[in-house]
Amino acid sequence: MDAVTRIEHALAKAIDRTGGPTAPPRLAAAMHYAVFPRGARIRPRLCLSVAMACGEDDPAITDAAAISIELLHCASLVHDDLPCFDDADTRRGRASVHRAFGEPLAVLAGDALIVLAFEALTAASARPGRLAPLLSTVAGAVGAPDGIVAGQAWECEPQADLARYQRAKTGALFAAATAAGALAAGHEAAAWRPLGEALGEAYQVADDIRDAVAEPEEIGKPVGRDAALGRPNAVLRFGLDGAVDRLQTLVSGAVAAIPACPGAADLRALIGLEARRLLPKALARSAA
Amino acid sequence: MDAVTRIEHALAKAIDRTGGPTAPPRLAAAMHYAVFPRGARIRPRLCLSVAMACGEDDPAITDAAAISIELLHCASLVHDDLPCFDDADTRRGRASVHRAFGEPLAVLAGDALIVLAFEALTAASARPGRLAPLLSTVAGAVGAPDGIVAGQAWECEPQADLARYQRAKTGALFAAATAAGALAAGHEAAAWRPLGEALGEAYQVADDIRDAVAEPEEIGKPVGRDAALGRPNAVLRFGLDGAVDRLQTLVSGAVAAIPACPGAADLRALIGLEARRLLPKALARSAA
Repeated sequence: MDAVTRIEHALAKAIDRTGGPTAPPRLAAAMHYAVFPRGARIRPRLCLSVAMACGEDDPAITDAAAISIELLHCASLVHDDLPCFDDADTRRGRASVHRAFGEPLAVLAGDALIVLAFEALTAASARPGRLAPLLSTVAGAVGAPDGIVAGQAWECEPQADLARYQRAKTGALFAAATAAGALAAGHEAAAWRPLGEALGEAYQVADDIRDAVAEPEEIGKPVGRDAALGRPNAVLRFGLDGAVDRLQTLVSGAVAAIPACPGAADLRALIGLEARRLLPKALARSAA
Repeated sequence: MDAVTRIEHALAKAIDRTGGPTAPPRLAAAMHYAVFPRGARIRPRLCLSVAMACGEDDPAITDAAAISIELLHCASLVHDDLPCFDDADTRRGRASVHRAFGEPLAVLAGDALIVLAFEALTAASARPGRLAPLLSTVAGAVGAPDGIVAGQAWECEPQADLARYQRAKTGALFAAATAAGALAAGHEAAAWRPLGEALGEAYQVADDIRDAVAEPEEIGKPVGRDAALGRPNAVLRFGLDGAVDRLQTLVSGAVAAIPACPGAADLRALIGLEARRLLPKALARSAA
C-alpha cells in the first residue's frame, strides 16, 4: 500500500469510529467534511517517510502517529477559518466548515478532531514505551507554549516575534511529524527535529508565495489575504525572487539535515520532489 | 495534603508549564483565567476519591488523571460560553473568558486546555500499562460519538434524544472521572462507571434545579437560561418537587453502585456530603 493510501485508509477508519449510531449526525458529518476529500497530507506523508527511512517495524503505530498529526492540522484549519480569525468562506475549493455547517458545529468539530487525534495514539499501546513520547511530542506541537495553538495566539498579541510566531504556527507540527515518525519506528526523536523545522519554515515561505502570486482556483482559497489582513509574508518582506531563494535554501538545508539512516537516499529524493510541488505552477515550471 | 490542595497544586503546575517565556502572554493569561480561581472541582475530587478508595499506589498518576478531567471540563465551559453557543457574559461570578479576553483567545484557550489535558496524562508513563487505558477513557469522554463535545453537538441537531444528550453532555465526564480514578490506581475501570454515570445524572438534575430556582449570586452565572433558550430542564419537566425527588433517587443509586473496595465506607460518606452541596442553599436547608 502506498503512503497516501495508508493515510487515507487510517483517517477513514478513525473518522468512521466517531460517526456510529449514537453520534450526533451533523457533528459526524462536519468532522468528515473537515478531513475529506484529502488535502495535500504533507505532514502525515512526512511522518510515514521518516518512519520508513528509520526501518519501520510496526506500521499501525506509524499510521496512528501520522493521522494524529493530520487530524490536528485539519482541526486547526477549521478553527482558523472561523469568523473571529480569518473569516474564510472557502477552503480546499469549497465552503469552509462553519460556512457549510454553522459556527457552533465548526467549533465542536475542531474540538472533537483534537480529541480524536490523541485517541488515535492509543494504537501504540502494543509497545507501551512508545506511547508516552509520542503523546508528549504531539501535544507539545499543538498546545501552549510553543505549538500551533500558541502560534495562532501570537496573532492576538500587540507585539510578536515573527520567527517565534512562524516556528509555532507552522514549524511545530512539521517538527512533530518527523519526530513522531522516528518515535513510531522506535528511534530517538531529537535528531529528526531539524529536518521537520527546516521543512516547516520552507512550507511557510511557500505558503506566503502562493498567497501572494497563485490563482485562487489553484490553491482552493482566497489569495492576497496576508496583505489584506496585515499579516507577515515573506514575499512582502523579501520580494518574490528573495522569497523563492529563501525557499530553495531552506529545502537544501532540510535535505542536509536528514540523519544517517537506512532510507536516507529515498527520503532525500522525496523531499526534492515535494519541494517542487510547493511552488505555484507557473513558478515551478520556471524553477524546474 | 487534602484532595483539594492536591488538585489545585497539580493544576497550577500544569498551567504554569504552558506560560513559560516563549508563550504568547495573553493566551497564557486566558488559560490561567479559565482554570483559576477554582470552581467546585467536583470531577477531579471524584476521581481522587475513587483512586484512594481503590488503594492508590501512585499519586502522581491519580493527580494526572484528575486534572486531565478538570482541564477538559474547564475547556468545555470556555467554548460553551462562546457567543455562538450560550453567549454567556459571566461564569463563576465574573466575566466569561471571551468577555475578558475576546473570542479568538477564548477559542484558542479552550483548544490549548484540551491539548494540555492529554499532555498531563504522560505523567502515567512510569507505569506504561496504565497510560493507554487512561488516554482512551479520557478521550472517549470528550470526543465523538459519546463524549461532552458530542453532547454539546446534540444542541445543533433538529431532534435529540434527551437521555442520550444528557449522558454525553454531563454523564460522560463523570463516568470518566470514576473510571480514570480506578485505572490510575491499577484497577479495572468497568465496575466504576455506573457510579460516575449516576452522579453525572444527579449533577445534571441539580444543575437544572439551580438554573430554575437559585439566585444568580449563589451560582455565579445567570439563572433561567434553560427556559429562555428552550433547553430541556428537569424542573420544567417534573416540577421542583419531582426534580428534587429524582436527585435523591439518583444519589442513593450512586451510593449503591460503589463496588466493593477498601475505602467504600469513606466514599459513601463523601458522596452523601457532596449531594447536599449540589442543592441551592434554601433547598439544602429544607432537605437536611
